[in-house]
Amino acid sequence: MSLIIVGSVAFDTIETPYGRREKIVGGSGTYCSLSASFFTQPEIVAVVGEDFPKETIEFFKNRRIDIRGLEIRPGKTFHWEARYGDDPNQRSTIRTELNVFQDFKPLLPPGYRQADIVFLANIDPDLQDDILAQVQKPKLVAMDTMNLWINTKPDSLLKVLEKVNIYFANDEEVRMLTKETNLVKAGNKILKRGPSLVVIKKGEHGALVLGEDFVFGVLAYPCKEVVDPTGAGDSFAGGFLGYLDKVRAINDKNEIRKASVYGSVLASYVIEDFGIERFKSLTQQDVEDRFSDFKKLVSF
Amino acid sequence: MSLIIVGSVAFDTIETPYGRREKIVGGSGTYCSLSASFFTQPEIVAVVGEDFPKETIEFFKNRRIDIRGLEIRPGKTFHWEARYGDDPNQRSTIRTELNVFQDFKPLLPPGYRQADIVFLANIDPDLQDDILAQVQKPKLVAMDTMNLWINTKPDSLLKVLEKVNIYFANDEEVRMLTKETNLVKAGNKILKRGPSLVVIKKGEHGALVLGEDFVFGVLAYPCKEVVDPTGAGDSFAGGFLGYLDKVRAINDKNEIRKASVYGSVLASYVIEDFGIERFKSLTQQDVEDRFSDFKKLVSF
Repeated sequence: MSLIIVGSVAFDTIETPYGRREKIVGGSGTYCSLSASFFTQPEIVAVVGEDFPKETIEFFKNRRIDIRGLEIRPGKTFHWEARYGDDPNQRSTIRTELNVFQDFKPLLPPGYRQADIVFLANIDPDLQDDILAQVQKPKLVAMDTMNLWINTKPDSLLKVLEKVNIYFANDEEVRMLTKETNLVKAGNKILKRGPSLVVIKKGEHGALVLGEDFVFGVLAYPCKEVVDPTGAGDSFAGGFLGYLDKVRAINDKNEIRKASVYGSVLASYVIEDFGIERFKSLTQQDVEDRFSDFKKLVSF
Repeated sequence: MSLIIVGSVAFDTIETPYGRREKIVGGSGTYCSLSASFFTQPEIVAVVGEDFPKETIEFFKNRRIDIRGLEIRPGKTFHWEARYGDDPNQRSTIRTELNVFQDFKPLLPPGYRQADIVFLANIDPDLQDDILAQVQKPKLVAMDTMNLWINTKPDSLLKVLEKVNIYFANDEEVRMLTKETNLVKAGNKILKRGPSLVVIKKGEHGALVLGEDFVFGVLAYPCKEVVDPTGAGDSFAGGFLGYLDKVRAINDKNEIRKASVYGSVLASYVIEDFGIERFKSLTQQDVEDRFSDFKKLVSF
């Protein structure tokens, strides 16, 4: 099958209790594609400026990410700055410089339009809708979003939601979107809006996957050191969808369970170091080893 | 084997988004004993006033709880009032009237002193220590506590901690006691103070069980309606220890995994109704059914 990932490729300036890093590579599309690359050859759709490092593009290629959809434009790359406190679930955005991302309105390369799986990472819901319209007959469409769009473009967001099969969100976003505190009720409300599966990411508490007559819970791996939580959610989505693409499964509940665990595995690795650093040493064997650890963690 | 449970038997006035109940039966010893009674015949140690309802004592007897250690004193029963908001993990204590609990200094009935398992629910740590000294040769000692004692009697608390095998606590308490945000690190710090197992209860996010070279995670059951969260933690401990008493296991890691799940099962039921109401209709089969549901919930 094939998987396209639409999101941001960016510079992040990050401060956590473990230190500060200036303008390291980040972005939802980056984390998601790198994670998916452990299972399949994802096709990325994003835009960067001329200041974006050539070696990162080489790294994408080495990980067999298809970069035909990665546009390089005159100007500067999207730059986001954030700070985390002692609680990795709490972060404050310090700065957002959209730069070339401001006019991001991609035309999918012809080869991308037959994609089987489409992931619309967190970008303007109108843009998500435009891009989705360019894919001919996707078998599975997944989306993510953020509080900004829930607050400023709820109608556009709900319009996209009707067209997707899987909605990835964190617990706060699900509660905000549905005005419902209980996550099971909130998830069920979202299922009524279109998706057949809602994946509620809960940071250090793992994730809850809800469908009609289906519920699966996956823990977060009990990490001693959360060096940089950035990208955990996107890595979860990348591992999840990359795995489904690899096993050519769309609706198989057993595969969805495994996909959730692989998502959690990738998320648990990425937070061990700043930015995408951990991906540079991560091996296929590491991924399989931690998948087994997750089994031990919850089996009884 | 045999299990004694030392805690409060009380009146609770509870307000949640589902309603308000005045002076219904509650207390850590109550929840813990009722939960344990699904596995063994727990021996309760507590004090109530003359106003305590006879029918609840009959209910304890019907559930084969040994009430020789339940003292009835002239005066009024301990009364606690609390309010929960939309988030069941957040509660405010409105009122605490100790009443007969003020002078609670129990002498264990002779038949209790040979107990194999001792659970010291959340009471003054000096009292926990006194009571523990009355048990001849316990095979397993477990304790719970609360933020009040962590703040006001940390030395007494640490003294008891050295003598126990299992420490039950919620995430907030573990962080407060160790001044460590990361729960795995916090748990490891506590393991160095004495216990061989730390059970970190995380409300709607389940529980994390940590030992030396041992980690097990159990989800909370995804409940749609959390009517009254009171007693969930004590029910967890009761199910956990009741099960260990039943299977006569102290150190068996597989049994500890199952005990954790049974703890979560009992906690998931008690919150479905106010106070101890749910225990009145709960059957052995219900408990086993949900144990199986927990397997389905996490298996992959």
